[in-house]
Amino acid sequence: MEPYQPTKKTRLRRLPKRGHYDRETVYAILDAGMVCHVGYAIDGQPYVTPTSYWREGDTLYWHGSSAGQMVRTLEAGAPCCVTVSHLDALVMARSGFHHSVNFRSVMAFGHAHKVADPEAKLAALDAFIERLYPGRNAELRRPSAKELRVTTVLALPLTEAVAKVRTGHPVDDEPDYALPVWAGLIPVEMKFGKPIDDPLLTPGITPSAALKRYRRKRG
Amino acid sequence: MEPYQPTKKTRLRRLPKRGHYDRETVYAILDAGMVCHVGYAIDGQPYVTPTSYWREGDTLYWHGSSAGQMVRTLEAGAPCCVTVSHLDALVMARSGFHHSVNFRSVMAFGHAHKVADPEAKLAALDAFIERLYPGRNAELRRPSAKELRVTTVLALPLTEAVAKVRTGHPVDDEPDYALPVWAGLIPVEMKFGKPIDDPLLTPGITPSAALKRYRRKRG
Repeated sequence: MEPYQPTKKTRLRRLPKRGHYDRETVYAILDAGMVCHVGYAIDGQPYVTPTSYWREGDTLYWHGSSAGQMVRTLEAGAPCCVTVSHLDALVMARSGFHHSVNFRSVMAFGHAHKVADPEAKLAALDAFIERLYPGRNAELRRPSAKELRVTTVLALPLTEAVAKVRTGHPVDDEPDYALPVWAGLIPVEMKFGKPIDDPLLTPGITPSAALKRYRRKRG
Repeated sequence: MEPYQPTKKTRLRRLPKRGHYDRETVYAILDAGMVCHVGYAIDGQPYVTPTSYWREGDTLYWHGSSAGQMVRTLEAGAPCCVTVSHLDALVMARSGFHHSVNFRSVMAFGHAHKVADPEAKLAALDAFIERLYPGRNAELRRPSAKELRVTTVLALPLTEAVAKVRTGHPVDDEPDYALPVWAGLIPVEMKFGKPIDDPLLTPGITPSAALKRYRRKRG
């Protein structure tokens, strides 16, 4: 896959070694996440909306209420920035200044458009469910015409993106290594618990084997 | 504490029952988080930057490189939106449409200013470390003049904010409850692992008792 070309918006001016422009890294970080933060502006006022998302090929998708402000603003052609971030560790150094966090993040820039074709929209929503819960679509009641009408699927072509990654231990000033201060990492992880039955569940129905051992692949 | 007054930016038009304007709820969600997403716009182009933050009273703080684009843009008076979100559970319903997530989020709007007074800046940075690692400041090498110069602390007065919260089980269409589909929640949690020593650590130094049982209070 061709790497992204750094642009005025995606070139890291500070700590360029943390920047990655290859699609494998960008996609892995996107695929490891559950929630993105969509940034858009109305008359110069920024809004940052957290929402679920999914990726297929070189397109990032999310959905929203057709009547909602985010959908209407982006549909009308406003540029957006979508950011996905993972916190991997707290990095504790020997000075406050060198404390840091290990993280992986992606910022993607562009214009999102709505998936207008009804079949493509249905396929995209099915892909959303499949991405999170493989095999589940086949069990569910299908979307109604009204549900499809009130839901807008937005698609952002991934053409301008950058990944930022920090890994490893603290990097202290040389003389500070002699200080009697503990330094290192505290790992942070997103963990899934065991499925909890809906109290209104028809007795005898159990979660699928895939749900019982639910773990999403993390990048 | 006085609740926030809903404004044009913070009033929830859809699902108003998910909105909370009391400061207790907003503060608890902020205090449970480690990473916020700062939105700002340059010539109408939004940027969403993930960064660490902390709260003291009715002010949200974060820091950045004095030469960085975010700091320079916000210092120059651009409005921002800072969003903190926690994913608490995947909500699995009997139709794709009613699948959801349980979450807590805060969006705060306003203008951030830099903490210019050197003593106030040092106190703010100390508070940042203390918030994450109680007691640790006393152990660390103090910030140098140069470190303070290249770091800008931004302060956002929390005057316009809204919390959004979804809790509980799926809410399905009445007829769908009869379907033979498992429904319920898969809980999601942020977990901290055991501290990992820096390989360059002076032998014999161990993490403090507080770090060994590191758990941040989650709201």
